[in-house]
Amino acid sequence: METYMQMLGRLAKSASREAAKLGTKAKNRGLLAVANELVEERELILQENAKDIEAAKAKGVKQSLIDRLALTEQRIEDMAEGLRQIAALDDPIGEVLGMKTRPNGLRIGKKRVPLGVVGIIYESRPNVTADAFGLCFKTGNAVILRGGSDAIHSNRAITRVIKEGLRKEKLSQDLILLVEDTSREVVNEMMKMHGWIDVLIPRGGAGLIANVVANSTVPVIETGTGNCHVYVDETADIKMATDIIENAKTQRLGVCNACESLVIHSKIADAALPKIVTRLKEHGVEIRGDERAQAISSEIIPATEEDWGTEYLDAIISVKIVDSIDEAITHINTYNTGHSESIITKDYDNALRFQDEIDAAAVYVNASTRFTDGFEFGFGAEIGISTQKLHARGPMGLEALTTTKYIIFGNGQIRG
Amino acid sequence: METYMQMLGRLAKSASREAAKLGTKAKNRGLLAVANELVEERELILQENAKDIEAAKAKGVKQSLIDRLALTEQRIEDMAEGLRQIAALDDPIGEVLGMKTRPNGLRIGKKRVPLGVVGIIYESRPNVTADAFGLCFKTGNAVILRGGSDAIHSNRAITRVIKEGLRKEKLSQDLILLVEDTSREVVNEMMKMHGWIDVLIPRGGAGLIANVVANSTVPVIETGTGNCHVYVDETADIKMATDIIENAKTQRLGVCNACESLVIHSKIADAALPKIVTRLKEHGVEIRGDERAQAISSEIIPATEEDWGTEYLDAIISVKIVDSIDEAITHINTYNTGHSESIITKDYDNALRFQDEIDAAAVYVNASTRFTDGFEFGFGAEIGISTQKLHARGPMGLEALTTTKYIIFGNGQIRG
Repeated sequence: METYMQMLGRLAKSASREAAKLGTKAKNRGLLAVANELVEERELILQENAKDIEAAKAKGVKQSLIDRLALTEQRIEDMAEGLRQIAALDDPIGEVLGMKTRPNGLRIGKKRVPLGVVGIIYESRPNVTADAFGLCFKTGNAVILRGGSDAIHSNRAITRVIKEGLRKEKLSQDLILLVEDTSREVVNEMMKMHGWIDVLIPRGGAGLIANVVANSTVPVIETGTGNCHVYVDETADIKMATDIIENAKTQRLGVCNACESLVIHSKIADAALPKIVTRLKEHGVEIRGDERAQAISSEIIPATEEDWGTEYLDAIISVKIVDSIDEAITHINTYNTGHSESIITKDYDNALRFQDEIDAAAVYVNASTRFTDGFEFGFGAEIGISTQKLHARGPMGLEALTTTKYIIFGNGQIRG
Repeated sequence: METYMQMLGRLAKSASREAAKLGTKAKNRGLLAVANELVEERELILQENAKDIEAAKAKGVKQSLIDRLALTEQRIEDMAEGLRQIAALDDPIGEVLGMKTRPNGLRIGKKRVPLGVVGIIYESRPNVTADAFGLCFKTGNAVILRGGSDAIHSNRAITRVIKEGLRKEKLSQDLILLVEDTSREVVNEMMKMHGWIDVLIPRGGAGLIANVVANSTVPVIETGTGNCHVYVDETADIKMATDIIENAKTQRLGVCNACESLVIHSKIADAALPKIVTRLKEHGVEIRGDERAQAISSEIIPATEEDWGTEYLDAIISVKIVDSIDEAITHINTYNTGHSESIITKDYDNALRFQDEIDAAAVYVNASTRFTDGFEFGFGAEIGISTQKLHARGPMGLEALTTTKYIIFGNGQIRG
């Protein structure tokens, strides 16, 4: 007897074979049909979403999480609009990269193809259900979604509506499969479905991601954690540094590309730090610094060793004073999470050295770390931001949901 | 107190930072110095290798394994020549892929950079020690090598000689680190070094690979297992099919790109199969087939369900008769390991359908599966053949040992 997850794996694998054969037109028609269906069935989705919200309130879940869970007519329209935008993007599938003819006459090319079955484990935002489906479907993949139990009614409703949209276009309803059993055992089983699920993408808090990395036998793309730094070099334009730090720290708290730590060259610290502190204090940011930073501003409270490695996701920032760019680079490479790092400098050599030697997905000169984002990078969509080095690094657009295969055209070649 | 593996991880991480800064010239000089050192110190290496061979003989290890373990002057010269060839290859590091300017003026490019620390777990071939070092070093990575206990004296000697070559060029000796403790506990610890080792590549038998996939928290690139098929389509040229099958099965037994299974269209089976059987029998190949194949040739013995999924690595092949290309594709996609598959056909539509619908790293039309190889594909080197879909698929050359980072040049941009 197959288990529930084995059944989902089998259905997804079979649907993925069909999806891989679909042309761009059929996929775009499917996306638009699903977008229409979401708008038409918004009442149903809102009714089901209300059940999740009621249950969350009864459990005493905090307001910020309820806000993430709550859908509105506008949010449903945004989900539909997201699918329409995905339909408008170029289809990466089928591109042949660099076909060459070998001396023996074999023509060898590398063709972009779907991954197959994508598994996504996510937390309470129900809009991920439609987004993830859209990106996976556009790239010819089937998707198995495991959302949080908090959002199960919403996710069920959205999935049902998406399936109905697919049905109307005569597409397989198994292209999206929701894991309706939200028990821990089922997640554990999902992480062991090597051979059935081709990649697993966890989207959520650090605990969820660490659990998936530690326990999955399916290849994982790690996303998210960002202990991002801005380094104010000796020659920085202080006004530019202050504006960028304000933006990177306060434009949106609680996001992975927000700045969590400042590193400042000692030769500019006396002039720059008070201005930066004043600006951050206007936004109510708590500033934790080393002893030298504290000596410059009485607004700065002591930082501990733990602060250097902490992603606050809150109105808090740490400050470290260094005596050289080498010290700055070593500090950042020791404590960062490989997400986004920025140097503010007028020095040409230091700009290039920072970009060369910092080990992170996105390394900036004179710009805010907040730009690390699939839309800002011009990909038109984003399935997450990879902080690992294999397969995809940084903001992941449609291409991250593809793989390649070698296609070889011969006329009887055998190996000598 | 740090453990032995933590120490290796720390040394490797530190060396990898230095390696990432090296220019192509410095790396090539290092490779050539190491090549010279290997040739000069061949006596030492042969002496140490003799200890491994003696120990293997005392343990009653079978001759084929001893042959793989044994070094000769020629094999050492081949190792050195391999390093010289790697020195001659283009350096992929530093290439910037597609730099674009965004509407806000940010210039965003994707730069090819080293992975950092590569871990390789391999079995008894000591030449892997020099090969893997050469490929990792050329791409600016440090490497931690865990070879089998059978080859420990040889691996120690080769590593010592490589370090001496590095020292002469004033390069860090920690660029190659051999795990000298060959206990199982140490391998288990190595597989959990997430954050210290950036990628783990197991090279060896199916058991080794399955163990690493199941237990590693470090991202893994799976290599190797190849249950490769040749499908003889209705319109195949029978002479071409026979030649290709002979080559794919018998040119070298025991390699991952050898053909393990034939799939033959029923309309051509009566004409083609007897010729194929005769040819394979000249090489002493045992042929196991379904009932329809057995009815065509009395040389064919019964195949069981298990045969369809078996990578023999031996003078055995299975034969399945099908009634359509659809049936062939379904059969292959059910039982293959995603390595190399070939169709022999004169039919244009079937050639393209096979390439589109077969899920494998390399899909051939009218050529032998034996070509799936980094050298045959023109990469000049190979670290293994990936049978997974993430990061690298198919033969892996230098590029598979790299990642990318986004480099962003701004002049004060903040996000609105």
